[in-house]
Amino acid sequence: MVATKAGISIDRLGADLRALAEIGRAEDGGVYRMAFSEADMVGKSWLEEKMKDAGLETSRDGACNVIGKLRGTDPDAPALLVGSHIDTVPCAGILDGTLGVLTGLECLRVIVESGRTPACDIELVAFSDEEGRFGGMFGSQAFAGQITPDTIHSATDPGGVRLEDAMKEVGLDPWQALQARRDPKTVGGYLELHIEQGPVLSTAEEQVAVVDAITGLFKWSITFSGEPNHAGTTPMPLRRDAFMGVADFAHEIPRILDENGSDCSRATIGRVELTPGSPNTVPGEAVFTIDVRDTDETVMNELAGAIRKALAAIARRRGLRFTYHVESWIKPVACHPRLVEKVDAAAQAAGVRYRHMESGAAHDAQIMASVCPVAMIFVPSVDGKSHSPAEWTPYDDIEAGAKVMLGAIERLAFGES
Amino acid sequence: MVATKAGISIDRLGADLRALAEIGRAEDGGVYRMAFSEADMVGKSWLEEKMKDAGLETSRDGACNVIGKLRGTDPDAPALLVGSHIDTVPCAGILDGTLGVLTGLECLRVIVESGRTPACDIELVAFSDEEGRFGGMFGSQAFAGQITPDTIHSATDPGGVRLEDAMKEVGLDPWQALQARRDPKTVGGYLELHIEQGPVLSTAEEQVAVVDAITGLFKWSITFSGEPNHAGTTPMPLRRDAFMGVADFAHEIPRILDENGSDCSRATIGRVELTPGSPNTVPGEAVFTIDVRDTDETVMNELAGAIRKALAAIARRRGLRFTYHVESWIKPVACHPRLVEKVDAAAQAAGVRYRHMESGAAHDAQIMASVCPVAMIFVPSVDGKSHSPAEWTPYDDIEAGAKVMLGAIERLAFGES
Repeated sequence: MVATKAGISIDRLGADLRALAEIGRAEDGGVYRMAFSEADMVGKSWLEEKMKDAGLETSRDGACNVIGKLRGTDPDAPALLVGSHIDTVPCAGILDGTLGVLTGLECLRVIVESGRTPACDIELVAFSDEEGRFGGMFGSQAFAGQITPDTIHSATDPGGVRLEDAMKEVGLDPWQALQARRDPKTVGGYLELHIEQGPVLSTAEEQVAVVDAITGLFKWSITFSGEPNHAGTTPMPLRRDAFMGVADFAHEIPRILDENGSDCSRATIGRVELTPGSPNTVPGEAVFTIDVRDTDETVMNELAGAIRKALAAIARRRGLRFTYHVESWIKPVACHPRLVEKVDAAAQAAGVRYRHMESGAAHDAQIMASVCPVAMIFVPSVDGKSHSPAEWTPYDDIEAGAKVMLGAIERLAFGES
Repeated sequence: MVATKAGISIDRLGADLRALAEIGRAEDGGVYRMAFSEADMVGKSWLEEKMKDAGLETSRDGACNVIGKLRGTDPDAPALLVGSHIDTVPCAGILDGTLGVLTGLECLRVIVESGRTPACDIELVAFSDEEGRFGGMFGSQAFAGQITPDTIHSATDPGGVRLEDAMKEVGLDPWQALQARRDPKTVGGYLELHIEQGPVLSTAEEQVAVVDAITGLFKWSITFSGEPNHAGTTPMPLRRDAFMGVADFAHEIPRILDENGSDCSRATIGRVELTPGSPNTVPGEAVFTIDVRDTDETVMNELAGAIRKALAAIARRRGLRFTYHVESWIKPVACHPRLVEKVDAAAQAAGVRYRHMESGAAHDAQIMASVCPVAMIFVPSVDGKSHSPAEWTPYDDIEAGAKVMLGAIERLAFGES
C-alpha cells in the first residue's frame, strides 16, 4: 500500500460533479446532455480541460470518445482503461455515468499528485452516447469495432433525427467513427464505476457492490390481433379482445420466471398500445413490449421459449393472432475473475460495507468485454432512483466507491496486491 | 291494414343512402360527416330538400336538429316522432343513424303517396351530434332540455375545438340550443330504427330486432400509481408495477360479471396508457378506462361496487394507489310496453324473422325517453361491424326493417292495431 491512500478528496469530486451538472441543466432541474447535443459537446470540452489540469494527455477518437492518458513506465504494456460516459437521457440526474468518469478523474488526479508512475498507461475514457439516443452504445461499440457503415447511415433518434446529421451539426465527421476501433492488444482491462440504478444496495444499507456479471437482455415487441368491436353491443363470449391477451400474458410472467428463470431473472411489460384505444371499443389490436434479463444466456433462451409457448396458447384460447419482433438480444457478460478479485481486495482493504451482485442494467463495460477483461463497481442509488433529477448517492458512499476504484487501479496498474 | 302496405321501395331508399354517402366521403372510403362540420351541414341541407320533395314541412330548431313534419288531422294531438341522426364518427360507414333517418323518410313518403292523413302529426327528425363529437348527444339533449349554458361554454371535441366555435364557424348561434327544448306534452312517442352494431342478429340470421331496453352505462377512468423503476435493476419482489395492477383487474372482470351481472352485462377495458411507457422501465402509472353496461341500474350499482372492491384489493396487494374518475353514468332505459307491442305486431304482420333484444349501444332514443315513450327497431350489422366503412346491412334486411317501421307508424299514428 502506498502514499496515495489518503488521496481521494470527496470535496474536489463533489465540486466536479456540481460543475458538470450545470452544463445542460434545464429549468425543470433535469440535466439534458443528450449525445451529440450542444450541451454534450460543451461537457466533453469541460472534461478535456479537467483532464489537462490533472496532467493527462487528452485526445478524441473518431466516435468522439474523450480520452485522457496517464503514461506508464512501459509504453508497450496494454493500457488499463477506466471510465464510463457523460451523456445523459433527457431530464437526467447528475450522477449516472458521469459519476464513473469523474471518479476515474479523481483517482488519476490522486495518482499524479502522488508522483508515482504506473507500470502501464492508464486511460480515462468517456464514451459517446451510452444512453442510446441513436439506438446502441455508439462510443464503446465504435471502440470495439462494432460500428458499420449501415449504423452510421440508418441510426436515428426517437425524434427522427439522423445520427449522421446530429454529428455533422456539431462539427463531427460521422464516418470517422469507423476509425475508432482500438486494437485489443493495446488494452489490458476496463474498470467502470456506476450508480446501481436499483434498490438493492440502498435497501441493504451497503456502500459498494463488486459486480460479478452484467445481465443479458432481450426485448420483443409483441402484437396480439383480435377484432375491434363495440363495447356495448358485443356479448362477452363473442369477443376477440386483444387486451385480454396481454392481461393473460402478464399473469404468466411470474410462472414463466419461476419455472425457467434464475434469482436474477427479470421480465417487464413497459409499453402497451391498444388500437383503436377508445373507451367504448373492444381493443382489436394490442402492441406491447417485453424486456427480459438474466445473467445466463441458456436461461435467456429458456425464458424466450416459454414466452413463445405462453403467447401461442393465449392466442389459441382467445381467438387472437400473435406476432413478435425481436428488437434486441444482448448477451450477458461475466466480469473477469482476476479483475473482480482485485476489486474485492480493494473493497476489503478500504473497509467499506460491500456485497457482490450482478448488474441488471447494460453498461459500456458490456461492450468493452469483447475487447478486454472488465470489472465494475456499483454505488447505491437512493430509493433505486435513476434517470431522474431525484437520482442520488450519499457523498459517503461516493467516497467509498472512489476508494475502491483507486485501490483497484493501484492493484491493476501498479502490480500491487 | 291499408293501401300503404305495398309501398316501401328499397330501390328508392337505397338510392337515398348512396346519395347521402357521397356527402363527406373521403378517399379512404370512409364517411366524415362529423357534427357541425361543413359536410354535416351539407348533409342537413340535402336532407331538407329530400323532406320537401316528400311533401314535409321542414324546420330546424336551435340545436340544428332538422325536422320534417307531416300534418295530422288533429293539430292538438301529441306528435309521433320518427328519426335518428345523420352525423358520423370519422371514417364511418354509410348506415348507422343515417339508415334510421332515411328509413323514416321512406315511410313518410309512402304515407304521403297513399293520400292518407295520420291522426296526429308525424315528425321526421335528424338529431345533431349523436356521435358525441362534443361529449354528449347534443341534439336530442337540447330537444329534451338537458343542455345548460355550461355545456355550451365548456364542450370541446377531442382535438380541442370548442363547440361554440364549431357552431359559429358554420353560421350557427350556439346559444339558440337553449331554445330547442320541446314541450313534452306535444310529443306522444319516438320511434328509432338503427343498425344493431353488434353480431347478435347477424349470427342468428335474423332480420329485425324489437328492442326492449337500452342499456345504461358507466365509464370510469382509473389510475393505478406505483413506482417507475429500471426494468433491469429492480428485483421482481421490490416492484410496484402499475401495469400488473391493470392486468390483475382485467382478470377480475369475468368473476365480477358472473357474480354481480346479468346476461346482458358487459365490461370493457378499451384504453390503457402507461407512464413512462418505455420498454425498459417498470410502469409507474397506468391510466385505463372501463366501460360497463347493463339494462338494470341496480345491477350497474352492484357492478360498480364490486369493481371498487377489486381495485382496492389489487392496490393493497401490489403496493399501488388507485383513483377513479366517473366519466359518465347513463341510466338504462326501458322501451315503452305499448310501443314495443306495436313494433312487435308490425314485425309479426310483416312476416320477418325477428327477435327481442336489448340495445348495448346508446342512442338518441335513450335521451328521448325523458320526453316521451320510445321504441327501437334494429336491423343486422354484418359481422357486427359498425363505425367503419365495412359496416353493412343486406338490402333485404333493410327492407324488412323499413316494413316494420312503417307498420309501427301506421299502428301508432293511424290508430291501427
